[in-house]
Amino acid sequence: MKEVKIVLDAITTDGNLDKVVVGAIKALNELPNLKLYLVGPKEEINKQLVINNFKNDNLIIIDAQDKITNLDNPMKAIRQKKESSLYKCFDLLKQNDDIEGLVSAGSTGAILCGAIMNLKPIGKCYPSLSTLLPNENDEFFCLIDCGANVDCTPKQLLEYAKISNCYMKCMYPNKDIKVGLLSNGVEDTKGNVLTKEVFQLLKESNVNFIGNIEGSDVLTGKCDIVVCDGFVGNILLKNIEGSLKMVIKQLIKKIKQTNDESEKQYLQKTVNELLSKYDLNSLSGATLLGVDKVIMKGHGNANEKTIYNIVKQVYNLISNNLIEDLKHETEK
Amino acid sequence: MKEVKIVLDAITTDGNLDKVVVGAIKALNELPNLKLYLVGPKEEINKQLVINNFKNDNLIIIDAQDKITNLDNPMKAIRQKKESSLYKCFDLLKQNDDIEGLVSAGSTGAILCGAIMNLKPIGKCYPSLSTLLPNENDEFFCLIDCGANVDCTPKQLLEYAKISNCYMKCMYPNKDIKVGLLSNGVEDTKGNVLTKEVFQLLKESNVNFIGNIEGSDVLTGKCDIVVCDGFVGNILLKNIEGSLKMVIKQLIKKIKQTNDESEKQYLQKTVNELLSKYDLNSLSGATLLGVDKVIMKGHGNANEKTIYNIVKQVYNLISNNLIEDLKHETEK
Repeated sequence: MKEVKIVLDAITTDGNLDKVVVGAIKALNELPNLKLYLVGPKEEINKQLVINNFKNDNLIIIDAQDKITNLDNPMKAIRQKKESSLYKCFDLLKQNDDIEGLVSAGSTGAILCGAIMNLKPIGKCYPSLSTLLPNENDEFFCLIDCGANVDCTPKQLLEYAKISNCYMKCMYPNKDIKVGLLSNGVEDTKGNVLTKEVFQLLKESNVNFIGNIEGSDVLTGKCDIVVCDGFVGNILLKNIEGSLKMVIKQLIKKIKQTNDESEKQYLQKTVNELLSKYDLNSLSGATLLGVDKVIMKGHGNANEKTIYNIVKQVYNLISNNLIEDLKHETEK
Repeated sequence: MKEVKIVLDAITTDGNLDKVVVGAIKALNELPNLKLYLVGPKEEINKQLVINNFKNDNLIIIDAQDKITNLDNPMKAIRQKKESSLYKCFDLLKQNDDIEGLVSAGSTGAILCGAIMNLKPIGKCYPSLSTLLPNENDEFFCLIDCGANVDCTPKQLLEYAKISNCYMKCMYPNKDIKVGLLSNGVEDTKGNVLTKEVFQLLKESNVNFIGNIEGSDVLTGKCDIVVCDGFVGNILLKNIEGSLKMVIKQLIKKIKQTNDESEKQYLQKTVNELLSKYDLNSLSGATLLGVDKVIMKGHGNANEKTIYNIVKQVYNLISNNLIEDLKHETEK
């Protein structure tokens, strides 16, 4: 198997450098063909490596003393903060054809701008963000676009459906990938001006289009890809998180209120299980589709599990030739 | 106190006439100033009244042998099915100035068409549907529009914010009603082409506008009114239902899997509590705002609790002069 080279940004929005290092170590221990370029403050990274007693030639540290935060203007920061970890990550990607992926839990805007400025486009549209979310059958579905483009054209959504179709086939090679269009009803006639046009385009396309799906069916496993613009997708994604949180908070309130010790214990067990089952942050990241490298973004409060999972997913997508598939699909 | 006259459609989408009658009886027993016009098949209604041993002069039965179903074309049916319960409900509203409200758990489309055709408009826009939903503080917030108008103009959303503001003030006279605009981020600059314009209009309006709110904050009680177009609102509403259902299904799966009898019992208790707490169907209905009568629609599978709750809410809105307030607000 060929060596897979990935850049990892050591700086997360929440500044958990120690967790990034532990996640990187876990991935390197599991994947012998992985070569990781870890970009961030050298001394801090080295300190964490000593703490974890880790030494491996497949980990290369690239020193970067500055960082881009969510308070920075993304476009300005990715142009001007030349000592920041994210700037240096993109520089590495740009200078080295054989480094094929990037993992970062930094500013979404800066990652998006960096990718558009430094990488070659695939397809005709702006890159989109796709997120993998667990459904009630313990499988994952892909939500695209989940926030990169709030105002989309019909052709843009058609392209997003096609590229996420490639992406999901690359993630799950043995699955028959079903594409649904998020709408206000299942009937073919439902939708707004935008989605009614997208409906026709998807019907005529080469993806396995199952029609409109409602907000209530997103989590039932009816389809593997949910297509919508980034405005709706972002609201949906955050609403799923918010709804799950509300139930969990309700159970925690019950734990505090009850005097029955066994009830307390059983409720706590349930809460723990729900938290680990629906831990949307750690399970996966958002993938930027539409540029010629595999870019995955973790939540700002990414932990070691998140970093490990995302590095592994980027590794698999590179190994399964996602970029070649995307080029082939969008050139059709 | 003046007599409040409300029409009640005995035909629900799921055909639970017996439950409608029990809900009506409960409301009549509680509200001595309520006069209910129950429209549906006379013999069946009478049979249910005998079963429940109920006789009260404030219940008037209007015979209607036909019904409008979800399979009918709403506009065609509300014009042509003159023996249907819903047609007769609107006829009563049209002919009698003193009948001020309608409760139905029938076809949303037919109710919308019937209201537009038979009632006088309030404001400049098409009527909208607003739904009350419970948040994590056990209070209710209003989602508008939740499905009546999928493509909205900025001015339309401004009017929806204003009329729902009246509506919520009428429901909760002592509350300082806060209005939020559903968007893809809390920052003032976030939004799509539509909501960015609405943001400016709301800022200059007389409602207590707190700015953009995200999908994750809809349920945290940050605001009392969530403004969005009917496409996004419908997806959000159904997604909240779907997300809650997913957790409940997960707990039910656990009940089936465990052999620990006390765990089974505690989990079942939790499931029952969640089901009753987040029973979105029974707690309230969707209110049609923008016509000169109070129209509330229950879910198609409305039960006695739903009907009772909705009749009581319509009764309160009429008693608190919602229609006068709406006229005053939209004429400003």
